[in-house]
Amino acid sequence: MVIDSHAHVTAPEALYVYKANILSHRGGHGRGKVEATDEDILKALNSPVFGGSSHLQQLKEAGTDMQLISPRPYQLMHSESPKLVAWFTEECNNIIARQAKLLPGTFRGVCSLPQTPGVSPKAVLPYLEKCVKEDGFVGCLVNPDPGECGGIETPPLGDRFWYPLYEKLVELDIPGHIHSTACKSDRLSYSLHFINEESIAIVSLLNSNVFTDFPTLKLMLSHGGGAIPYQCGRFEASALRRGGPRFSDRMRNLYYDTVLYSKDALELLFKTVGADRCLFGTERPGVGTVKDPKTGRWLDETRHLIEEFHWLSPAEKKMIFEDNAKKLFKLGTSEGAKA
Amino acid sequence: MVIDSHAHVTAPEALYVYKANILSHRGGHGRGKVEATDEDILKALNSPVFGGSSHLQQLKEAGTDMQLISPRPYQLMHSESPKLVAWFTEECNNIIARQAKLLPGTFRGVCSLPQTPGVSPKAVLPYLEKCVKEDGFVGCLVNPDPGECGGIETPPLGDRFWYPLYEKLVELDIPGHIHSTACKSDRLSYSLHFINEESIAIVSLLNSNVFTDFPTLKLMLSHGGGAIPYQCGRFEASALRRGGPRFSDRMRNLYYDTVLYSKDALELLFKTVGADRCLFGTERPGVGTVKDPKTGRWLDETRHLIEEFHWLSPAEKKMIFEDNAKKLFKLGTSEGAKA
Amino acid sequence: MVIDSHAHVTAPEALYVYKANILSHRGGHGRGKVEATDEDILKALNSPVFGGSSHLQQLKEAGTDMQLISPRPYQLMHSESPKLVAWFTEECNNIIARQAKLLPGTFRGVCSLPQTPGVSPKAVLPYLEKCVKEDGFVGCLVNPDPGECGGIETPPLGDRFWYPLYEKLVELDIPGHIHSTACKSDRLSYSLHFINEESIAIVSLLNSNVFTDFPTLKLMLSHGGGAIPYQCGRFEASALRRGGPRFSDRMRNLYYDTVLYSKDALELLFKTVGADRCLFGTERPGVGTVKDPKTGRWLDETRHLIEEFHWLSPAEKKMIFEDNAKKLFKLGTSEGAKA
Amino acid sequence: MVIDSHAHVTAPEALYVYKANILSHRGGHGRGKVEATDEDILKALNSPVFGGSSHLQQLKEAGTDMQLISPRPYQLMHSESPKLVAWFTEECNNIIARQAKLLPGTFRGVCSLPQTPGVSPKAVLPYLEKCVKEDGFVGCLVNPDPGECGGIETPPLGDRFWYPLYEKLVELDIPGHIHSTACKSDRLSYSLHFINEESIAIVSLLNSNVFTDFPTLKLMLSHGGGAIPYQCGRFEASALRRGGPRFSDRMRNLYYDTVLYSKDALELLFKTVGADRCLFGTERPGVGTVKDPKTGRWLDETRHLIEEFHWLSPAEKKMIFEDNAKKLFKLGTSEGAKA
Amino acid sequence: MVIDSHAHVTAPEALYVYKANILSHRGGHGRGKVEATDEDILKALNSPVFGGSSHLQQLKEAGTDMQLISPRPYQLMHSESPKLVAWFTEECNNIIARQAKLLPGTFRGVCSLPQTPGVSPKAVLPYLEKCVKEDGFVGCLVNPDPGECGGIETPPLGDRFWYPLYEKLVELDIPGHIHSTACKSDRLSYSLHFINEESIAIVSLLNSNVFTDFPTLKLMLSHGGGAIPYQCGRFEASALRRGGPRFSDRMRNLYYDTVLYSKDALELLFKTVGADRCLFGTERPGVGTVKDPKTGRWLDETRHLIEEFHWLSPAEKKMIFEDNAKKLFKLGTSEGAKA
Amino acid sequence: MVIDSHAHVTAPEALYVYKANILSHRGGHGRGKVEATDEDILKALNSPVFGGSSHLQQLKEAGTDMQLISPRPYQLMHSESPKLVAWFTEECNNIIARQAKLLPGTFRGVCSLPQTPGVSPKAVLPYLEKCVKEDGFVGCLVNPDPGECGGIETPPLGDRFWYPLYEKLVELDIPGHIHSTACKSDRLSYSLHFINEESIAIVSLLNSNVFTDFPTLKLMLSHGGGAIPYQCGRFEASALRRGGPRFSDRMRNLYYDTVLYSKDALELLFKTVGADRCLFGTERPGVGTVKDPKTGRWLDETRHLIEEFHWLSPAEKKMIFEDNAKKLFKLGTSEGAKA
Repeated sequence: MVIDSHAHVTAPEALYVYKANILSHRGGHGRGKVEATDEDILKALNSPVFGGSSHLQQLKEAGTDMQLISPRPYQLMHSESPKLVAWFTEECNNIIARQAKLLPGTFRGVCSLPQTPGVSPKAVLPYLEKCVKEDGFVGCLVNPDPGECGGIETPPLGDRFWYPLYEKLVELDIPGHIHSTACKSDRLSYSLHFINEESIAIVSLLNSNVFTDFPTLKLMLSHGGGAIPYQCGRFEASALRRGGPRFSDRMRNLYYDTVLYSKDALELLFKTVGADRCLFGTERPGVGTVKDPKTGRWLDETRHLIEEFHWLSPAEKKMIFEDNAKKLFKLGTSEGAKA
Repeated sequence: MVIDSHAHVTAPEALYVYKANILSHRGGHGRGKVEATDEDILKALNSPVFGGSSHLQQLKEAGTDMQLISPRPYQLMHSESPKLVAWFTEECNNIIARQAKLLPGTFRGVCSLPQTPGVSPKAVLPYLEKCVKEDGFVGCLVNPDPGECGGIETPPLGDRFWYPLYEKLVELDIPGHIHSTACKSDRLSYSLHFINEESIAIVSLLNSNVFTDFPTLKLMLSHGGGAIPYQCGRFEASALRRGGPRFSDRMRNLYYDTVLYSKDALELLFKTVGADRCLFGTERPGVGTVKDPKTGRWLDETRHLIEEFHWLSPAEKKMIFEDNAKKLFKLGTSEGAKA
Repeated sequence: MVIDSHAHVTAPEALYVYKANILSHRGGHGRGKVEATDEDILKALNSPVFGGSSHLQQLKEAGTDMQLISPRPYQLMHSESPKLVAWFTEECNNIIARQAKLLPGTFRGVCSLPQTPGVSPKAVLPYLEKCVKEDGFVGCLVNPDPGECGGIETPPLGDRFWYPLYEKLVELDIPGHIHSTACKSDRLSYSLHFINEESIAIVSLLNSNVFTDFPTLKLMLSHGGGAIPYQCGRFEASALRRGGPRFSDRMRNLYYDTVLYSKDALELLFKTVGADRCLFGTERPGVGTVKDPKTGRWLDETRHLIEEFHWLSPAEKKMIFEDNAKKLFKLGTSEGAKA
Repeated sequence: MVIDSHAHVTAPEALYVYKANILSHRGGHGRGKVEATDEDILKALNSPVFGGSSHLQQLKEAGTDMQLISPRPYQLMHSESPKLVAWFTEECNNIIARQAKLLPGTFRGVCSLPQTPGVSPKAVLPYLEKCVKEDGFVGCLVNPDPGECGGIETPPLGDRFWYPLYEKLVELDIPGHIHSTACKSDRLSYSLHFINEESIAIVSLLNSNVFTDFPTLKLMLSHGGGAIPYQCGRFEASALRRGGPRFSDRMRNLYYDTVLYSKDALELLFKTVGADRCLFGTERPGVGTVKDPKTGRWLDETRHLIEEFHWLSPAEKKMIFEDNAKKLFKLGTSEGAKA
Repeated sequence: MVIDSHAHVTAPEALYVYKANILSHRGGHGRGKVEATDEDILKALNSPVFGGSSHLQQLKEAGTDMQLISPRPYQLMHSESPKLVAWFTEECNNIIARQAKLLPGTFRGVCSLPQTPGVSPKAVLPYLEKCVKEDGFVGCLVNPDPGECGGIETPPLGDRFWYPLYEKLVELDIPGHIHSTACKSDRLSYSLHFINEESIAIVSLLNSNVFTDFPTLKLMLSHGGGAIPYQCGRFEASALRRGGPRFSDRMRNLYYDTVLYSKDALELLFKTVGADRCLFGTERPGVGTVKDPKTGRWLDETRHLIEEFHWLSPAEKKMIFEDNAKKLFKLGTSEGAKA
Repeated sequence: MVIDSHAHVTAPEALYVYKANILSHRGGHGRGKVEATDEDILKALNSPVFGGSSHLQQLKEAGTDMQLISPRPYQLMHSESPKLVAWFTEECNNIIARQAKLLPGTFRGVCSLPQTPGVSPKAVLPYLEKCVKEDGFVGCLVNPDPGECGGIETPPLGDRFWYPLYEKLVELDIPGHIHSTACKSDRLSYSLHFINEESIAIVSLLNSNVFTDFPTLKLMLSHGGGAIPYQCGRFEASALRRGGPRFSDRMRNLYYDTVLYSKDALELLFKTVGADRCLFGTERPGVGTVKDPKTGRWLDETRHLIEEFHWLSPAEKKMIFEDNAKKLFKLGTSEGAKA
């Protein structure tokens, strides 16, 4: 079984029309809602909008059995007016919950939270609880920079500021998927901002007491962990100088998806953090959904790369493709039934 | 011959006393100068301040024949008052020039520039010219974020804002060494800021027309290029979508040092950008100057790692250790004599 | 013939999906474009999205022969990043131009301009010229507050700041339709912001030298001129105290649409500024497209109210419904043919 | 009997000398006080400073029997330092209280409150209570924008922020007279700012629960309600779309003065909100105290315009001129004696 | 003959009523003007507003023959909107010019300038020229901090920023009287702000090249030079360390008034800078116009203190009381006739 | 016995290297500590760094028996990040405590506090208590402007904001030495900022209730009290106008050091505040450590000036040189033993 642990919803256009509209009237038209029928939702999944192929076709072609879908992060606009963020988040999560209900064997939902820059995550906990307990979500996105490079800084993930969220994640026994959103700076794109924020997240978490204080906390880092598996020697040196566990050992407190799109990078990741810490992910369809003219293959078609690593045992490969995801997101039969 | 292309000066204490002082009086005591004799300068190089070993001992132990030394970037405080930055930059470069004169076979200087956030690099060109033509510097540091995360953004390196500097680098035929400085954000350390800025620099440069407009421009990225060699699949995908050369091909417009401290990372770097684009570097003594209790070796002792790569040819290894540095920094005999 | 001089485009959803997208990626995906076929454009006009009735049905029901359509102002986001504003403006105007070509007897386009808060309107003149000369637009929206209450003030319309725009309007012989956009303040909705800005626009224009300096300038105020026809006594008093022409006389330098939705208000408008200064307008379908349960009529169905004013002569009514619009927007036969 | 419910004090010059002084020394000279004898106060009322005629002459000429006087709003400087605002407010109210005592048959006082932008109105309640219970004031001004367009926003009047004030108004059984003060924007004069703020006040109040929560709250809107009686169709449409009472019905929760200076506007006002909701007001002497060369009459001489409306019954006219004011401000015989 | 070189106008109340008014309407009522007759002006000078005694009585009692009067600095509000500053400055200077014409033997005018924080003094030069050439002013106030502690800094007086003003002062051959205005900080009163700014002014001027570049520039420091005559040893030390003339010698490039109110302070001043650099001044009536209960004398009655210094020669005393003022302000007979 | 009550530490260079370093890494290297042996500390005191003479030589030459040493204020950087301030303060105080222990007959320590702009001094009280009770400090510096002219204002010393500190000073029975630190404004040097802040401190304290509320509070003003002894007539006048004690009497609530460097200034100080309120101080070595070419003497060699004042009695001179310091700082035998 192949589970894709990092993917984003392909929603009906009405969701983004809704977003453009609330951003324009700023609440003047009232909250409203996304007008989308189940047919609209299924139609979106079957429209050939990504490189000529639809979301469901992509899954089929890739041989993916199940996908964990969350909102498209770059659309989440956490630095906007909190009221608008809350509305859009709820509408977006609703679409995801409906997709998961419509195609229960194929999709599970990972919700987003209406985060506000610099404001304690306590504010979002009731909503998170509802998403998990009532709407069947199996995890949530955690944006380490809801300010979106716009000048309002939020403490980094190693800070006690985030403890209320970690307590709730542990209590609900669900993982947090670390993933930042847009970037208002003109110096870099949101895509690179993701990478940089993942590096910041890992260094902050691993240089803090978070995993001493929350030994059962489950956090999954996007995109293979930003720069850190590649740059880990630098942080190993600092850790050795300060004493305490090696940085390379601490890295194994976290989980990492495999959204990397290159064989050498995947190899580095597995060797650095271990197969038991990696979850297969593709963001498919997404940034990597483009065909390489040299190979004729989609860049986000990475399953075969992993399968070809002879130095990985079949058990390790099964961990990456299936077991780790099942364990982290509790994707057992009864859970699926509940959702 | 082994040339270490990325290292920083070990200066007499008087340099940092000077810095603390001008930061405090803000010019009220006048410019003053660093009072350091040649003996002070040599004493600093022989003091056992890094893990019990001196700068010169480290070089000897490592078998490094020549080192390119620049100011310690985290001390450069580019976001401070421009007058103070100019004073400190000059004093710091002076110490480096004097070290290079005192030990001409061992050191060559790479100067820093008194950059100001958001201000055109035109302002620093006369000083750069003096450093190269009169003081024997063979390259210069280029800080892509003189604002030091303090709120004043400078356009990214792909912007025409930087063209006056590129013109001068081409005219002087010297390389720019991309290296950021301190970081005023509480979210990340300066050390991680280096990495993130390197990623921003590469993506901005390679998605711009800089190398079309300046085909002979020589830029060396620090720390193996931040996250990019590891994350290149992501940017390959975007480039394929937009058309034009592949991102992996464009990456070969740049040079990269090997300041990485882990075998797997070095392997990834060489495979990704090619040996002809890599320059041996250690920052030694520096962040990696700590002994690994497992191996008993300094973490920044990376020469043997490279030498053990059997898939690299001797010619390729010579490129990395010697030829690329000689070509980039023009370290031929006559040049050395001039300095 | 009934011409509706103030109405906004009913565009395909793809336009707003495009907007949500560029706001999220901030240019990272490139400019892209709105993917909408002629069928999509016609479909939008025939969808029953406003109170159960489609745009074209509304026109038919109201007996409107021709409508001047501009972008929905509250969507224009002039206070956003200028690059994004320019992209969205162009896409939006393109849809309008295509609608006008598809239904040339029914629609004429009034374009919007990519205005920037506090920046001279000189920047938008080449684009305005292109819209009029190449794309057949017969007028343009002028936003007196591109800062959208967000803290960056733009000088009021009586200021010489706006003279380059007035010169171009006179040169092109087209009218400016004064209409503000969104409002970032939590104190009022964009809809009331429109009204307040119209009042500011009129007072600033009429207390300035604009109509002395540009006697042939044609400006149409939205929504019956905000508060001013009702509050004119207040400004008459100030004008009498200062000397110069009476405010009530100066008011006749401007044109006003009839987007008011109440009989008493329409009556006040006509009596205050004269029928020769009024253009029939409805914003239909728009804010007034709701049925009054008392009368069973749409609130924006105002044509019959005007026709029932016995104190208006047939010639005056014709001015309001047809002649003034033809004169202002030069909607003669040959013009129509050209467009 | 004719009661003018909206007029402002004609104070001795010493009041404004005091203001200029405290603004300059910012408290350095201590609080001090306005040095004005009863003679000074009476002299100010008899000086021919408004179009050659004195305040008392104006009243006599107009046939006004009683006038409710409050501070000149544009002088109240609520966005200044709170200490200075408190001092000036008290001095200004003192002059009004003394005028009302000196001429008890002619004047009643409406006090102002030392409001602070963004600060809860709780802070001013003790002072309001003192004004009403000890100093004989029959109402108070309420400034919906104490920030005076200077960048610090205060929530709009429909927000719960204002509930402490509404509770106190209900408890004291006095009306609040909505009237903004100066305007620091260069885009509009304070006079137009009054109008725009009245529109904001009405829309915010009527789209909130204020009159559900405070059914006996009495609020009088200045200048005939800004733009709203003229623009009410626009808001009727929104209300119909949202459900709940019609906007035109909700408008009758408020009271409006007749400070409009034009026959057509007065007619629109009475027809829109009803005579039982209107109070005669002139601001005389004030902005309208200028003679119309066409008629030879003062623009603020509006009593005859109302008397000439044949479609208003004598009882309705009596409401406007007398009964509504008596009821709202409790101007009965015993009250007058108390004051 | 006794000349009081530092005093401020006692103006009719109408001047401050005017100020309060323009600050409130911010130009909305137009510029207007101060309505004051010659009788009003003379009445102000004869009103017993300072400790029970009038301005003219104070002069008589003190035996002052001539007084140089300027605006009351704390009223000048240089940090306000430039338009309002210009209006008030002109009105205030007009009153002074009229006083000087009404009492030509008693008063000479020192004008103020409509300075703007951070803006080059070039802007005020035409107005200064008019004041001197047309209106008979014999000097001008120079405010070294037009930002009034409000956050906008203006370069200190030793900066080349001020050279255009110095050039004009030299060309017109009139002195600048250094005197700051109000202070918006809550940490200190305007009165102490005067003192601190005088210290800043002296140190900046004397550590610059101003008197090398303008050897004939005449500048008079208020209040005996702030802290500097008392603290001069501190700056003497710095000057000796840097080389160049002694600070005590440089201090003699400036002139100082004697507005000090204590015998010991006056003695320190004369001994420190020399009698040829001091001009008798009292600010009378002003801050010192209060009777000391111990002596029964006004505190600003300082003439007798100076006359009692036996260590000053009669010629030195004549310098202080008369000659220096005549020389600096060119108060010869013909000048007086001209004014 | 001669006690110098105002002097600053001459520390090993390592202290300032430490400062430059933490300012650069902003905590990234951890807190670390100053590496200085007792030999380093003694060496610093014997190095001829001030005008060719060492700290200890200066004391000997001056005949000073004991010196109270505090950190060099201009280095304290209170406006920097609080964490860094705390680190540097502790390191700096440690050096002072060690000097006092190494040379117990010569030095006593006056500690600095890690103040933060605008933050209540409550935060620093535990640290102050430790310094006094455990480390032998006999007083502390109090910086009235920890914002260092950088835009964040702290209330002035007369404000109740400071009461927690005053309570602790009274409880510990130690004096506060008022001394500001650096100055970020380009208008004045830190040295003049000291003077201006002393003036602000005195005026604020003496116009408040501080000494009514804390009659036993001991505060020593630096540099002879800024401008105030010279300018006291000005504040005497204000005090007389307001009533209450004379300003000249209130001035005797404070203590003043004699760091003035000129005979006339010293004379003015003693005459104005009385010998029982003055403590001999020199800041030696410091700003005054320069030889006057006229006299051949150091400017800060002021003891002989005081000894030559024949109008001071021997008892008064003993107060100045010894008794006042002993009383204020409790420098009796047993105290010395304890430290």
